[in-house]
Amino acid sequence: MRRSVLFTKTTKDISKDEVSRNAQLLLRAGMVNQLMAGVYTYLPLGLRVLNRIEAIIREEMDAIGAQELIMPALHPRDIWDTTGRWEALDVLFRLKGAGDRDLALGATHEEVVTPLAQGIISSYRDLPMAVYQVQTKFRNEPRAKSGLMRGREFRMKDMYSFHATQEDLDAFYDQAIGAYQRVYARLGLGERTLLTFASGGAFSKYSHEFQTMTDSGEDTVYRIPGTQMAINEEIIGDQEALAGIIPNYQKGDEATLSTVKAVEVGNIFKLGTRFSKAFGLTFTDRDGSVKNPVMGCYGIGPSRMMGTIAEILSDDAGLVWPAAIAPYTINLIGLRMDDAGVKSLTTRLYDGWRAQGIEVLFDDRDAQAGEKFADADLLGCPWQAIVGPKGAAEGRVEWKNRATGDKSVLAEGELPFTR
Amino acid sequence: MRRSVLFTKTTKDISKDEVSRNAQLLLRAGMVNQLMAGVYTYLPLGLRVLNRIEAIIREEMDAIGAQELIMPALHPRDIWDTTGRWEALDVLFRLKGAGDRDLALGATHEEVVTPLAQGIISSYRDLPMAVYQVQTKFRNEPRAKSGLMRGREFRMKDMYSFHATQEDLDAFYDQAIGAYQRVYARLGLGERTLLTFASGGAFSKYSHEFQTMTDSGEDTVYRIPGTQMAINEEIIGDQEALAGIIPNYQKGDEATLSTVKAVEVGNIFKLGTRFSKAFGLTFTDRDGSVKNPVMGCYGIGPSRMMGTIAEILSDDAGLVWPAAIAPYTINLIGLRMDDAGVKSLTTRLYDGWRAQGIEVLFDDRDAQAGEKFADADLLGCPWQAIVGPKGAAEGRVEWKNRATGDKSVLAEGELPFTR
Repeated sequence: MRRSVLFTKTTKDISKDEVSRNAQLLLRAGMVNQLMAGVYTYLPLGLRVLNRIEAIIREEMDAIGAQELIMPALHPRDIWDTTGRWEALDVLFRLKGAGDRDLALGATHEEVVTPLAQGIISSYRDLPMAVYQVQTKFRNEPRAKSGLMRGREFRMKDMYSFHATQEDLDAFYDQAIGAYQRVYARLGLGERTLLTFASGGAFSKYSHEFQTMTDSGEDTVYRIPGTQMAINEEIIGDQEALAGIIPNYQKGDEATLSTVKAVEVGNIFKLGTRFSKAFGLTFTDRDGSVKNPVMGCYGIGPSRMMGTIAEILSDDAGLVWPAAIAPYTINLIGLRMDDAGVKSLTTRLYDGWRAQGIEVLFDDRDAQAGEKFADADLLGCPWQAIVGPKGAAEGRVEWKNRATGDKSVLAEGELPFTR
Repeated sequence: MRRSVLFTKTTKDISKDEVSRNAQLLLRAGMVNQLMAGVYTYLPLGLRVLNRIEAIIREEMDAIGAQELIMPALHPRDIWDTTGRWEALDVLFRLKGAGDRDLALGATHEEVVTPLAQGIISSYRDLPMAVYQVQTKFRNEPRAKSGLMRGREFRMKDMYSFHATQEDLDAFYDQAIGAYQRVYARLGLGERTLLTFASGGAFSKYSHEFQTMTDSGEDTVYRIPGTQMAINEEIIGDQEALAGIIPNYQKGDEATLSTVKAVEVGNIFKLGTRFSKAFGLTFTDRDGSVKNPVMGCYGIGPSRMMGTIAEILSDDAGLVWPAAIAPYTINLIGLRMDDAGVKSLTTRLYDGWRAQGIEVLFDDRDAQAGEKFADADLLGCPWQAIVGPKGAAEGRVEWKNRATGDKSVLAEGELPFTR
């Protein structure tokens, strides 16, 4: 993509309302634009990052046998009345449709997926089954000051699983934990992300959050030393629960756990039969008996992931995207594009890389070197290839690693990613 | 994909509310599920079709240099007040957000894209610029009885272009017509789709609809003989307009045009400066003068396209998807899966095709032959490969073209798509 025609501009003018580091960086970089608090446009560069995060999540959900579908955002009131959440869920957006009918905007989709499964699941032979969607969700958050980390409109991957037995749910739930851990690893957050025990509600001892350690996190969790596991604040006072989690637990051990600030980047939950009972979803078991499937739900927010990565994997100069989700692999910078040698070499590199399927953002603008360097650091593509008049005359390119700042001067043929 | 684990079931029980042919077929096939009138879940097979339609549209928009972004669905009232459409657009969903703030759900996005462009377009050097999104839109339609062809929640590709001059808009608009025509051709509707002149509003003599001829269409258009062009009802009485459209027009010629029923599958419009003026979007031209960009907008609904294709390209037995958007290329049918030979041959074919990247739906269910045949015809994959015990013993497969019904019996090595 040529920067001269890209629908974006970097900026230093950020609204004072944007107090979060992720929003400041993403707005300055022109990756997103704020329409109102908690509601953002994804500009072309930002959309590329979001799409890549979502693709990684899809791959890992597909790998454990879940099937993608997409459910609506507009819901009739009656499904929310069935579970009592029309009244109980305070972040639900409520509105009126044709004929003065009460509608809600989808904040979560248990109320849709459970009756949907009724037409499809009727026998033990139809189980287990897991479906997911990657979809825009709406929550009327009273405060939305955390940039992409808490939106009123945001992207969500929500998966729902249906099982004939608790044991089968337990086994799939463990598979889902593995899938989530692979997602965080691929997004560059594996080592910072803790499988965190949280309270489980009526149907399960625990639920689990995935908490990524960062000083800007809203949550505090208690890390179990020497592990990638933690305990959240809800259950740190529950000694019976702790005994089930911490190996060789002794009363008082919890005082030795280290507290860390973290942001919740995923949440998985054993729902039991709460929703299948509410909607009368049943299946006929092997022995002819009629039962409610036990269910699990598994959520991860791609837009929140994007905000978290922006917040954590960045430095004073700007964003630092992991290669797996960077908007472009190489930011090619031509200094003095009016120089024939620069124009010739940069164009050759740009065309050559693109012919190999390598994604290149080509800063071909008529702008000062300082502006181009600052922009490239701000946008955070993993590699920068810098061509000035002197280098072009000698057939040499400066090659910079955005994350480390390491630079080397290479002949055209020595460049990585060139044949 | 193995049919035995697919999250879908075909059905004969369709709500009597569903009067449209496309909804009946898509519901029977388990491609979509209705949550409320005009609001559908896309089940795995349906989502695959929708995704392919959207991918084709994206390719053609990218090919004319448009850039993809995604704008929000939640809008603050003030942007709609700016254009007077908070009151004027009757299908706008209105709701309350935090702090009792008036919000709208995005029914179209001129009100978002124009102020968004303000931060990006400031000079003639930033023009022309075209951006598009593929997004879920919301319209509070009083009636929604046409299945996927008129939804309250539906998918939309909307593109917006910005130009320094009317001539530049005109040239891009013609490019967009070409891109749209390529989309319809790739979706199998090229010959049935007419470029249709419609009224243009304050800034343009005409706008254009793309109308696909079908007896179930809501619109009537007047086809110009020997062309892929038509005139809509709004302007058939306007002789001055007709003279500009029909070559060698003589008064009364319009009576000789043949009327056809059609469904609108796209709409493009020259907006002029209506929105750039309303939002104060300006650029500094080459001579230093400050001007409003002229704009165009270009809409096509992927979900409506899916409904239209289901409605038109189908027969008494069910859906008939063009290969470019079929959920799977081959529907492999094993008859008597308890037969060792059938199991062995179907599994070998399934694994072999998949290893080549060919998408196969494998009906491996324990079900009657008649049910499998009927299901395969209903789902509408382009090819069926049928393996029964006798054929398996002889290494032979029945190969059926869904569209024509042509069948042949082939040895394993003679099958298309096998090495």
